[in-house]
This record gives sequence, structure tokens and C-alpha cells, in this order.
Amino acid sequence: MPEEHREAPDLESIFHPRGVAVVGASMKSGVGGNMFLDGFQAMGFSGDLYAVNLKAAEGSQIAGRPAYRTLADIPGPVDHVISSVPAPAVPGLVDEAAAKGARSIHLFTAGFRETGIGERAELEREVLRRARAGGIRLIGPNCMGLYCPESGLSFNTSFPLESGNVGVVAQSGGISRAIVGMGALRGLRFSRVVSFGNALDLDEADFYDYLAEQPDTAMVATYLEGAKDGPRTMRALRRLAARKPVVLLKGGETDAGSRAANSHTGVLAGSGRIWRAMARQTGVIMVDSVEDLCDQLSLLKAFPQGLTGARVAIAGSGGGVSVLEADACGRAGLDLPVLPDDIQERLREFTPVHGNSVRNPLDTFGIIDRENYVKTLRIASEADNIDVMILDTETDWGFRPQGRGDHLEATLGSIMEARRVVKKPIVIVVRDPLNPGAAQAWMDLQTRCVALGLPVFLGIEQAARALRRMVDWQQDRAR
Amino acid sequence: MPEEHREAPDLESIFHPRGVAVVGASMKSGVGGNMFLDGFQAMGFSGDLYAVNLKAAEGSQIAGRPAYRTLADIPGPVDHVISSVPAPAVPGLVDEAAAKGARSIHLFTAGFRETGIGERAELEREVLRRARAGGIRLIGPNCMGLYCPESGLSFNTSFPLESGNVGVVAQSGGISRAIVGMGALRGLRFSRVVSFGNALDLDEADFYDYLAEQPDTAMVATYLEGAKDGPRTMRALRRLAARKPVVLLKGGETDAGSRAANSHTGVLAGSGRIWRAMARQTGVIMVDSVEDLCDQLSLLKAFPQGLTGARVAIAGSGGGVSVLEADACGRAGLDLPVLPDDIQERLREFTPVHGNSVRNPLDTFGIIDRENYVKTLRIASEADNIDVMILDTETDWGFRPQGRGDHLEATLGSIMEARRVVKKPIVIVVRDPLNPGAAQAWMDLQTRCVALGLPVFLGIEQAARALRRMVDWQQDRAR
Repeated sequence: MPEEHREAPDLESIFHPRGVAVVGASMKSGVGGNMFLDGFQAMGFSGDLYAVNLKAAEGSQIAGRPAYRTLADIPGPVDHVISSVPAPAVPGLVDEAAAKGARSIHLFTAGFRETGIGERAELEREVLRRARAGGIRLIGPNCMGLYCPESGLSFNTSFPLESGNVGVVAQSGGISRAIVGMGALRGLRFSRVVSFGNALDLDEADFYDYLAEQPDTAMVATYLEGAKDGPRTMRALRRLAARKPVVLLKGGETDAGSRAANSHTGVLAGSGRIWRAMARQTGVIMVDSVEDLCDQLSLLKAFPQGLTGARVAIAGSGGGVSVLEADACGRAGLDLPVLPDDIQERLREFTPVHGNSVRNPLDTFGIIDRENYVKTLRIASEADNIDVMILDTETDWGFRPQGRGDHLEATLGSIMEARRVVKKPIVIVVRDPLNPGAAQAWMDLQTRCVALGLPVFLGIEQAARALRRMVDWQQDRAR
Repeated sequence: MPEEHREAPDLESIFHPRGVAVVGASMKSGVGGNMFLDGFQAMGFSGDLYAVNLKAAEGSQIAGRPAYRTLADIPGPVDHVISSVPAPAVPGLVDEAAAKGARSIHLFTAGFRETGIGERAELEREVLRRARAGGIRLIGPNCMGLYCPESGLSFNTSFPLESGNVGVVAQSGGISRAIVGMGALRGLRFSRVVSFGNALDLDEADFYDYLAEQPDTAMVATYLEGAKDGPRTMRALRRLAARKPVVLLKGGETDAGSRAANSHTGVLAGSGRIWRAMARQTGVIMVDSVEDLCDQLSLLKAFPQGLTGARVAIAGSGGGVSVLEADACGRAGLDLPVLPDDIQERLREFTPVHGNSVRNPLDTFGIIDRENYVKTLRIASEADNIDVMILDTETDWGFRPQGRGDHLEATLGSIMEARRVVKKPIVIVVRDPLNPGAAQAWMDLQTRCVALGLPVFLGIEQAARALRRMVDWQQDRAR
């Protein structure tokens, strides 16, 4: 349907249903559509939540919710229906939902166009015809649907309960789940998340337009495999990116990925080169992985005013590790300037001559020697050729039970004190554990730094790439 | 000194000293040269181990070892001396060591040429002159020295006690430590490890020649910043690579990295392009990070006969995650062929139509549905256009205390059964945890798979790059 003839969907209402019914809920716990019953309850959904199963006995419950045989049997209003019935039963369900007065159906049900089977594609079209006739908007099919902490919608029981300022528009439920999980580890919280699958009715463009206006959403992450209507998607992306930072992860950039995307959501994924050119034109930051995407969002969150440039100083352990970190920055296109002579002289006053560079990267005695560490960072950060300070950490102590807590607190103490006196952006690198016993220390250091509001990267390459992309994007926008 | 005039060092003896003295041991525990006293004892060093400190009282001990005021005071023989005295005291120590009959000195002491100070460079030359005069070979200065489980030498108390087949020749102690730690997590064990720092006397070429002949060493990892005598290093690398697989990590490839390397070991690091061309010519596998290096070694260890090619099948969770995994393989230059029609038909017989691709990547119901998972892998692996099976796992269950152990055992059970029936190489991908509580499960899954002898990668990109490098290297060698 051409854009001008479409009615703008009332997505804010769809994200705030009063009554929700999961149709095709299972008698077995934790399977199929029951994940929504569990997820909504874990999130404290405040509306009415019902389970529908043809075999439900009168007055029975499924997953702790009142169970009914059909939608029509439910006494209260139902705004939103979640379909977990087999694909051939969906057209009938759409009619029942319309009769019940529902505004929206989330089709968790898969097995439509993405199967590559002609009659399944026709079934999908029939679903759309009936939804249009019944005045119902569709999310999916073949998707995980909505996560909205504010209203208590969720497709996972472990998502954060608190709302945040990140919107997510993703064609894939698995990727949505990964973005929310990994993003939460990086300190991100979410306003509206949608996994929209085959995009039979509502598609990415609808959600982009919605999030462009949605007041709680300050930035948007999006995962796309393909667009039904490329130009429409581009226009919506451009409108969104003009208002808010947008980070795009494009699935199906390679031939193999494109084939996988076709199996997944039935799309013909476009060429990676075209999408990259488009991203640049529309002011979107394009990334290569979920980790990259979360890294980029955490940088945008930490520095909403942007960065003054891509010239970094690295404070780390020195030696070969610093050499490789300098290489990683160089490969990512970051500048690692030699500190000015006067700064070097001030550092040399208290830095022993052997084994300690004051040029950049900086050797820092060891992060737990707080006084010298913080003094080094303070002085180095005064260099007028440095935009960002990268603090490299390690958890090599983390496997020793006796020293774990002390070392963690000492490291965090140094970081906190550094943040107090350093007047430039700070990012933290937490390197992979070097000992099986250090896994918890590795995670604790991440989560504690994140709790301080600092962007954390699991490797200098990750930090360098995110910084470079951010500065490139700023420069593109400035033009 | 020209190559032909050098006496081949007896490195096997240097790695097996009868008596060792740490000179400049500290009265404080755990600092400076005491890490060698601690490390040797943790490794069960069977020779005589002494501490030397000018202030040692007669009959006293340091770090649990007999302490003497000077080397001359030690009653037994001392083959190997570890210097932890300040740089200006080293020339005198060399003379004392010669008088005591030592064969080798490991100069943990730093503060020589790498400082960029002329008189420190002259001091370094004086040390070399005296060592030559006294018939003593030097390791370092500015390095961590030797790790050899067989004889009990170590510079760290947490290194594996067991010997293995990997030799390491590294200019940096921090990188040596990272290779041993991360490598051990990947199931690697080590035969001989040396961190040689400024390479004043013994250098990488000496160690390459030694390891080429050393019978316990099946492969060699090396970290270099620069070479004193490039052609000599190249010749030794070529000789070594003709006998055993060699993985090279070159520090200082970029301008910033080169500057850092100069601060670190006083070398002028060469251009990355030259080294890459050289690596290819000499049959060396070149990598970009310690993680890459350990990944490559674990692949070489798992498949000593090599791979039949770079055509992979991915068995994973399906959906967008599989799309991105296919892209990652495509970007790394791996082939991800569509499975032959007959294989697809056999898979389709028991694979539900919706949401499950049988083309490649494969959706696999979930790894803990063992029967279907293993059946899928067995059939797919029979495809004659597939060389390697990549098994993608996750630890999304890992944060739930009640389900953690069950899920881990179920996942491992499926992997073990798959390995039994799949007649092609299998590699495991363990993705980053998506929940702070999953860190231990993430580590447990890694270590358990490694204990099964499987190569484990912390991301599909890592696996794809390592596979591509291995096949490229095989093809270069075949020419």
C-alpha cells in the first residue's frame, strides 16, 4: 500500500494495551507462547492478562493466568492478542480478534512466507487481508514482538525492569534479545523494543517514525535484514536519524548471510555496499555485530554531547601489551599522539626511568598504586592534543580468592578518583580473563564500572572502533 | 657478531639449571625478583634455589629459600643467575656470576637502552662485553625470562604445572604471560617459554634454532617487536617454520605501535607490510592479537593433519543470530555452501518447516534436544561440500541457578555425542554472556569443551578468522 494511503498506526497504544490474551498458550510451562505470560508477569504488567487454549477447563489457569477456550469467552476487553497457534489457524484467529475488538496482533507464529513455500506465502497474504478488513495492526509474523518496561510487556523473564532511553527496532527476536541482554550489561536501559519478523503489516519504517517522536527514546538501535520498500525505509531512517542517533546492524551483507536472511524472514537482503553508502547518507552509524552495536550505544549514552576528536591517550600496563594496544588504535584509525614535551617533563618528575613510558601509551605503575596512577592520568589529560582517555584494566588477580575483593575495590577506587580529576572523556577496557577462576572478577569489574556510568569495552579493538565510528559520524553530520 | 662466528648457545642446559640464584631478592614478599623465587617453588623446581641480598643475615631465608649476601657466599653450584639488582650494579654482578661459574644470567633488570638515554645504552654494551669475557650467556635485559614446566622454571605462580608441546619466544613478558594464561584456557600447554626483552645477547633467532630441534616442541608462538639483525631472524624463522608450525604476532606494525615498541624494548619496529610479506614467504602464520594467536595455536593443536578446506557448516540457534554468523564467515572469506539437495531432503524429513533452515546455517532445535541436534549434525556433516562443522553455543541459561548445571551438562552431552558421530573437524563457539550471572557458566562451558580436546572460540569471527588463516597457510605451504 503506498505510503500516503496508510493510516499512521497508533503504536503508543499498541505498546500500552489494557488487556492482552496469549492464544495457543501451552498446558506445559515455559514453552511456546507461555514465555509471554511469564515475561509479562515478571515485568509486572498492570493490565489484564489471559491465556487461551481450546482445551482449557472452565475456571482453570495457565502459567498463573485465567485460561479460556476462545477469545470470545474472555469477560474483559482485549486490546492486544499474541498468537502462538499454528500458521493455518491464524486467519481464523484474526477474525476472532477483530470480533473481540482487539487493536493489534503479535504473530509469534512462524511458518509463513519465510518457508519459501507458495501456499504459505498465500496464507500470509490472507492474514493481512483479514487484518485490514478487521482494522487490526499486525506485528510479525515470525517474531518475538514487544518489550516495554513502562507498561510491562516482555518476551523474556530476565530483561531489566527499569525503563531507559534506547529504542530497538529489530527484524529478529534473537538479535533483540542479544541487544537487550548485552546492552543491559553495558548499562543500557530501553524505552521501546520491537522484534517485527516478516513485517507483513507494521514494518521498520512505522517504528522509526514512531520512535522519532517517542519522547522517552533518545537513541535507536536497529537490526534489519531487508526492506519490503527500500525507499520508504530510507526516508523513515533519514527522518529518525535527523532527530536522534541511530545505530544500524545490517544482516545479510554477504552472499551467505543474505541466503540465511531469506530463510529467516523471507527477505532478499540487499548488498552490503549499498547499505553502507545509504547509512552514511542518512546519518546512521553502521556496525558489524551486536557487540559493536552495544558498544556504540554505550558510547553515545556516556557522551551525548559528542567527542572533541579521535586523539586518545592509553593508560595501561606498559610493555608489549601497550605496544599491541597502540597498534589496535592505529589500525582503527585513532590518533595516539605523543604527549607534549611539557607534559612529558611533568610526568618524568615522578615516573621511574626504567620500564615506564611517558610518551603515550602511558605506563602507570599499576592501577592500584592510586596516587601515582591518578596523578599520571590527571597530568596526561591536560595535554591539548588528547580528546579521550582509555583506561586499560586487567583481572589477572581475579583467580586468587584471597586477593579478589581487595584488588577489585582498589582498581575501582583508582578509576573513581581518576574520573574525579580528569576533565576529559574516560572509557574503560576490561580485558578477557587469563585464568578460569577470574570469570567472576572479570564480570564484576565490568558491572561495577558500568554502574559508575562509564562505557566499558571488552578489548581495546572494540573501544577503538567505537570511538572512530562516533567521531566519523559526528564529522559526517557536521557537513 | 656475524652469525658464523657465534657459538651456538646450549639452551637446553640453560632451561635445566641445577642451581639458581635470584640476586637482588627483596626482604618484602611478592615484589621484584621474588616472583621468581615464588614461581620456581610453585612449579616444584628440583634444583637448588637461593636468594641473594646484601643485607641478608647469616642463616636467614627469603621467600622460604636460603639467603646469602653475595653469590660467592653460596656453598653449592649456581648455573643460572636471575638479576633483580638496579641496572648500574649489573656489570659487577656479571663478573661475580662468572667467578661463581654460572652459565647464564637472566636480566630481569630494566633501565638500559630502552630508556633512550645514551649512558644507559653504553651500560648495556658494557654488560655484554663482560658477559662475553666471562663466557656467560644473557637473557634480556628487561624481561621475564624462562618458563619450563619440565624443569620447574617460572615467572608466575599460576602457570600450568604440566608440560605441553607449544614453545613461546616473546620479546615481552606481559605478552608471554598473556599467551600462557589465555592459551592454557584454550587447552594449550607449553614446553619452553622465553621472554627475552632487549635481546642484548641471546635473541629470537637463537631460540628459534633451539626450538626447531627441541623434541617436545611441536609448534611455536612468537611475539616480536623488532629484530637487531633482520636477515638473521628471517633465516632462523624460515628454518623453524620448515619444521614446525609458527604463529607470529608482530608488535609495532603501526606508527603508534612502533613508537611504543621503542619505549618498551628499544627497538625500531619495522613496517607492518614488510613483516606480512616476510611471514608469507617464510611459511609463518601471522596474527593480530594475543587472542588470535591462542586461537590459531588451539586450531593447530586440534587438527595437526590440517583441514581439507575452508567450507563450513554452522549449527546454531537460527534466526538473526545465524544471519550475522553467516555474514561473519563471509567477511572472513570462509565458504558457507548450500547443503546438497539430498542432504537437505534427509534433514527436512524430521525438521519442522517453520523457523528451521536446512540449507546452512542450520537451525538445530536447540542444542539440548540431543537426538535431533546430533541427527542434524551427523547428516549435515556427510555433505561432501563441507570441511568443518562450527557448533555455536550460548549460555543464556547460565544466570539461572536452578537450571545452570542441567543446561551445561545437556549442552556438553550433545556436543560429546555429536563428536562421536560426526566424522569431520568440529570447532566450538561460546558467545559472550548476556547476563551478569552467566559469567561462570560462560567460563565453565569453555573449560569443559576444552577438556574434551575441542578448539573453543569466543565468537564466530574469531573461529572464522582462525580457520581461514589455517587453510591459507596450508595452501601457501603446498605451493
